[in-house]
Amino acid sequence: MNTILEQTFSVPFRYAVAFTEDLFDPNNSIFVDSVRGNRVPKVLFVIDNGVADTHPDLIGKIKTYSKANDDVFSLATDPIVVIGGEACKNEEEIYQSIVEATHLYGIDRHSYVVAIGGGAVLDMVGFAAAISHRGIRLIRIPTTVLSQNDSAVGVKNSINAFGKKNYLGTFTPPVAVLNDFNFLKTLDDRDWRAGLAEAIKVALIKDLSFFEWLEEHALALARREMEPMKIHIIRSAKMHMDHIAGKDPFEFGSSRPLDFGHWAAHKLEKLSNFRIRHGEAVAIGIALDSAYSFLQNRISEQDFQRIIQVMKTLGFELFAPELQGENLIQGLKEFQEHLGGQLTIMLLEELGKGIEVHEMESDLIFKSVDLLRTLEEKSQLINS
Amino acid sequence: MNTILEQTFSVPFRYAVAFTEDLFDPNNSIFVDSVRGNRVPKVLFVIDNGVADTHPDLIGKIKTYSKANDDVFSLATDPIVVIGGEACKNEEEIYQSIVEATHLYGIDRHSYVVAIGGGAVLDMVGFAAAISHRGIRLIRIPTTVLSQNDSAVGVKNSINAFGKKNYLGTFTPPVAVLNDFNFLKTLDDRDWRAGLAEAIKVALIKDLSFFEWLEEHALALARREMEPMKIHIIRSAKMHMDHIAGKDPFEFGSSRPLDFGHWAAHKLEKLSNFRIRHGEAVAIGIALDSAYSFLQNRISEQDFQRIIQVMKTLGFELFAPELQGENLIQGLKEFQEHLGGQLTIMLLEELGKGIEVHEMESDLIFKSVDLLRTLEEKSQLINS
Repeated sequence: MNTILEQTFSVPFRYAVAFTEDLFDPNNSIFVDSVRGNRVPKVLFVIDNGVADTHPDLIGKIKTYSKANDDVFSLATDPIVVIGGEACKNEEEIYQSIVEATHLYGIDRHSYVVAIGGGAVLDMVGFAAAISHRGIRLIRIPTTVLSQNDSAVGVKNSINAFGKKNYLGTFTPPVAVLNDFNFLKTLDDRDWRAGLAEAIKVALIKDLSFFEWLEEHALALARREMEPMKIHIIRSAKMHMDHIAGKDPFEFGSSRPLDFGHWAAHKLEKLSNFRIRHGEAVAIGIALDSAYSFLQNRISEQDFQRIIQVMKTLGFELFAPELQGENLIQGLKEFQEHLGGQLTIMLLEELGKGIEVHEMESDLIFKSVDLLRTLEEKSQLINS
Repeated sequence: MNTILEQTFSVPFRYAVAFTEDLFDPNNSIFVDSVRGNRVPKVLFVIDNGVADTHPDLIGKIKTYSKANDDVFSLATDPIVVIGGEACKNEEEIYQSIVEATHLYGIDRHSYVVAIGGGAVLDMVGFAAAISHRGIRLIRIPTTVLSQNDSAVGVKNSINAFGKKNYLGTFTPPVAVLNDFNFLKTLDDRDWRAGLAEAIKVALIKDLSFFEWLEEHALALARREMEPMKIHIIRSAKMHMDHIAGKDPFEFGSSRPLDFGHWAAHKLEKLSNFRIRHGEAVAIGIALDSAYSFLQNRISEQDFQRIIQVMKTLGFELFAPELQGENLIQGLKEFQEHLGGQLTIMLLEELGKGIEVHEMESDLIFKSVDLLRTLEEKSQLINS
């Protein structure tokens, strides 16, 4: 005789995503309000060395801010500075050192780990926090366009392993995401630009009017004007948040519509040994899957040209030698393995509307690569 | 100008907890039904060496069963056998080898990892599965009383680190829990008995009638009769499941009512270098916190004696030299750090009803230890 019991429950999550300037200014209460509670928790800060270098006053400001609010929270220790960029996800010792810090400084499940930096540092610190004590509260303070408009508002963390990007990680929502626009001012041009690819991505698959807004403001964004940058970040972050909340936040299914352009991007990053940054690779991936959508007669040539044009105006390169050859195709297989289940790729049905497909033809991928190379050669001819 | 967006969503979980016999008998469809889907997934089996040793036909049966059902699922590789017991949670290489196996055999998010063994192996394999690809589907096949009536039906996994029990882990529900009563027949007397402590625990804090049932059947259970064992497992598992589903499955609060008797138990396991098994330590922890509840006049002497009596009938030792001295008290601090937030300890208000308190007096803990030692000396005198 068998007995079968069914277990069902839902776990509710809630967090604020704030947009501000000068987060640790003595008069800015957003941070202190985020950790306020009925006891005085310890807070462990971990900072991207790229941010610490370009903001040499940051650690001092955090200490002053903490002292002024010592009735609400206390620093577990001086802020820890870690190597930023993909390196921090590749080198296991860095992630181990953060896990060990939670042990050394007695950071419990009601304390906070605060990660300040680009997407890679947020991913790595987030993973360390997610598995220590089965999950320490995490506050993300993203400092790049890419992390503010996309990755930091989401629920994922990860490190790389076995040469596979994001092989180890969890779905663990943060308790707060605090975006400080001031960090964007010191970004180099590549990072300023790179993050815009995720906004183009989400606009192309979900919202024509946002794509048109991006077309309209591409030149201002390329000129590093702050106002359109802020507007686009809030709008893009909101779209990403709505998508996550809308269905399957922990991605139990095979579908991952927000990964338009990403199968090739992940592979390109690795093939280029991370010379090509994530956002830059996403721009190329968008161009490739848009070319493929055009060659499959899903979108018109005019639509394809608009996509290329907005990314060229922003300053993206839309071709890389690593696109050529069989290596790229291997990325499809890896993408499928990472998602699990059936291969599911997002293409474009029209501007502002994605469509999921379950196979891609190698021949047409090669033709798409050729098309991108031709366009790149033509534009170099014009510019020379 | 600050902008603050609120993100809220709920993540639904659902899994079956089945009770059966001879799970891999060709005619038993429970396992194959658990992995049936619209593709043929890979399944990676990991087996506790204690189970593999006492069931030398198990691996052969799994292979035969897999071959007979190769239209539904496929073995990723031969079942992997790992060291069971707390050792597998202490030695990082063991957990690393399981993570590496998911990489080597291409186990994706829609494949399955199946863990067969006692609670420690289920914890360790569950953790490896939970963080690989941000979560591979896990099926637990618990083989001890302790894991069938309590831990395996829950949502936690873990390994030990920095000398701290369960320091690394996640809250990740399994996709199925398949209990095979046949595994219980080969348990040694200590493990048969040890798991009963968790049933006494949940009965004492939640359900007087279950406690009375346990009193009534204590002798039959001590004599290793299968029928009351099965009945108590299903009832205890159901109570644990209802509790988890009822509120705060991922333990965001400080409260952990199911951990009655556990603050001392965790410490005792470590102080004894795991000579005292988890369930045995829980029995002593229950005795200690019951003595404390009695000395605080929360429960009557008669009630206290009933608790001691049912555990003595089952054959538990209710005293250990490690209880003496300051070391034990340190366990309170570690328990608080692990849960985070305010110290929250469950005591007894009456038989079948727990009550949470936020402090324990050292003096009264020492007196409770003295009381247990006196009772133990008296019972040795009677038996000698």
